[in-house]
Amino acid sequence: MLGGDGYLGWPTALHLSRRGHDVGVVDNFCRRQYDFEMGVDSLVPIAHLQRRVRRWAEVSGLQVEAFVGDLTDHRFCETLLERFEPEAIVHFAEQRSAPYSMIDRAHAVYTQVNNVVGTLNLLYAIAERDRSIHLVKLGTMGEYGTPNIDIEEGFIEITHKGRTDVLPYPKQPGSFYHLSKVHDSHNMHFACRIWGLAMTDLNQGVVYGQETDETTMHPDLASRFDYDAVFGTVLNRFCVQAVVGHPLSVYGKGGQTRGMLDIRDTLACVELALLNPAAPGEYRVFNQFTESFSVLEMAEMVAAAYPGATRIEHVEDPRVEKEEHYYRAAHTKLLDLGLVPHLLGAGTIHSLLAVVDRHRDRVDLQAIAPTVQWRKTASTLKTSVGLGQE
Amino acid sequence: MLGGDGYLGWPTALHLSRRGHDVGVVDNFCRRQYDFEMGVDSLVPIAHLQRRVRRWAEVSGLQVEAFVGDLTDHRFCETLLERFEPEAIVHFAEQRSAPYSMIDRAHAVYTQVNNVVGTLNLLYAIAERDRSIHLVKLGTMGEYGTPNIDIEEGFIEITHKGRTDVLPYPKQPGSFYHLSKVHDSHNMHFACRIWGLAMTDLNQGVVYGQETDETTMHPDLASRFDYDAVFGTVLNRFCVQAVVGHPLSVYGKGGQTRGMLDIRDTLACVELALLNPAAPGEYRVFNQFTESFSVLEMAEMVAAAYPGATRIEHVEDPRVEKEEHYYRAAHTKLLDLGLVPHLLGAGTIHSLLAVVDRHRDRVDLQAIAPTVQWRKTASTLKTSVGLGQE
Repeated sequence: MLGGDGYLGWPTALHLSRRGHDVGVVDNFCRRQYDFEMGVDSLVPIAHLQRRVRRWAEVSGLQVEAFVGDLTDHRFCETLLERFEPEAIVHFAEQRSAPYSMIDRAHAVYTQVNNVVGTLNLLYAIAERDRSIHLVKLGTMGEYGTPNIDIEEGFIEITHKGRTDVLPYPKQPGSFYHLSKVHDSHNMHFACRIWGLAMTDLNQGVVYGQETDETTMHPDLASRFDYDAVFGTVLNRFCVQAVVGHPLSVYGKGGQTRGMLDIRDTLACVELALLNPAAPGEYRVFNQFTESFSVLEMAEMVAAAYPGATRIEHVEDPRVEKEEHYYRAAHTKLLDLGLVPHLLGAGTIHSLLAVVDRHRDRVDLQAIAPTVQWRKTASTLKTSVGLGQE
Repeated sequence: MLGGDGYLGWPTALHLSRRGHDVGVVDNFCRRQYDFEMGVDSLVPIAHLQRRVRRWAEVSGLQVEAFVGDLTDHRFCETLLERFEPEAIVHFAEQRSAPYSMIDRAHAVYTQVNNVVGTLNLLYAIAERDRSIHLVKLGTMGEYGTPNIDIEEGFIEITHKGRTDVLPYPKQPGSFYHLSKVHDSHNMHFACRIWGLAMTDLNQGVVYGQETDETTMHPDLASRFDYDAVFGTVLNRFCVQAVVGHPLSVYGKGGQTRGMLDIRDTLACVELALLNPAAPGEYRVFNQFTESFSVLEMAEMVAAAYPGATRIEHVEDPRVEKEEHYYRAAHTKLLDLGLVPHLLGAGTIHSLLAVVDRHRDRVDLQAIAPTVQWRKTASTLKTSVGLGQE
């Protein structure tokens, strides 16, 4: 589990551990470093990885081994495979925020180099050590952008001038972060072709939720809850805004439609991919989301579910994206493998609101306003000269 | 002219200078460094950039200013634009060899980081300094791979489930180098969308030839001639093999078909792109080649043109590529702008053979045998621990 200390990595590691898999957790803690850089915190307090691992052993009786290191250090990558000898690798270890990648040149370059080089090192380490290792990598639905035709799962059959071929689905990503995932996808597809590696690319939608069956077993096992403008995920942010009486801030018209999923479905999808691995030489793509909503629809759902008064506010969209567009994306492959989705309803929103309510004294409203402007080359965000800077 | 000391960069700079453009030449001399690393040399001796520039002034009366620096150094990039204030930038400054990128992990990572970061720095520098600068960037026909449908120029209209959109043409590149150009293309397209930049991506075919109207004006103005297995271009290599009595080595069946063009057409295409710039916000792609040939056809043409005896030898293909495949690629946009191609005939081959014959004492046969194996993660190539290594 690479990136096993993160928002999704940690709950996924616990889920796999509880389901009987022998799990190692790898992280370099860059996600915690970004908090220092931004001056923000997870709404829900999170324990150190070492404490998390000890608590998990105590609560579950299961061992999860922690490895601290950076995939961009290829020697670490190689040693890791040598030491742990995995059958499969789940790779969540990338800088995953679009706004973070758009802060300025240094953050764009950092995001692309970190993500692309880390993954390249991993591909080489697998090819050198054991080509049978199944790589399950987190991609993003954002790789596709918002084309005016249906989005398929990674590949599309194109008939053109009387001939037909199945080709990689065209990509129109919307940030230097999303671009880094597109670069990864191309590199991974190539590695499958030349080295016969087996890979599953999970083009995931926007995740909401914070609690899983395992993370709720003890406060030390809790996962992050991000609501800030840079790392926060949109539904979580709306819940925070509702609880603290701040208007739910919708970027632009709010017609931006995205595939969404419950955090518990992320865990289930990863396990389904692991239990049904790709064939040698196969690069397969699963679109990992369960429902599509527009940003405005989500705000309206939160407003409807929240017992108190809330107001929806349209703010200028800091991103360059279509505020209204066609959106229909296939997502049947994981359902075919047996995924039973947790659909978004008032119940889920109520449990999210309850999480926020428990930690409402930790909310920093300053963290919510968008500060990163896509059209500018350097945002107004005050970041210290730190990670990603030169 | 970024990469203005290279095989194509230098002749292009001279051509543009002679045609009345005010040209600055930028290079970090990494191409010369690769020669040291590989222990090979250009067949035709090449003068230092400073000497080239002085000689050009003497021969033509025209000034070309030289700048020495590296695009991956963003401060250099920014200073360059500040000092020279270009209306347009021609960007050839990338590691451009597929085999070099496939030597091992370090060379793959070096190639992608060097090319992607250099181009990202340039995009930011343009966006910050002057968004009206027209960027003309060298891509490659290799970005497309060999799909079983016709290749279009950058974009393709797809009708799918009753809806239609024009989307980026799907990419299936065949090396970590070709992948780096795909990454660049996606980054550039995005920069046009968010910042309104104007760009032309020249997806160039395989270039042959060494002499242009300007480089033949004095030996100090000569451009490189590479025939080695790592940086050599295939037709040039066949000519060297013919002259020294070595069998013409065709990889595999030789049915690999590629778009080709004469070096003089590269120069003309770049000027046509400059004289007919992209619109603000436009990312356009020209397929820059004039004819398609299979590798075997080229070997046969050289064998037919060479006055002495030659033999064609099929060697095991070190690459992972289709040895026989469909190949039809559009290339009308540059013709529409007025390109009058130099087609490949016996005359061109004779002039190439004459270049080789003049320098036959400099041929190093050891440099010709393929050493980089696509299927392996570290080739048998003996390179010193140097550039790109850690």
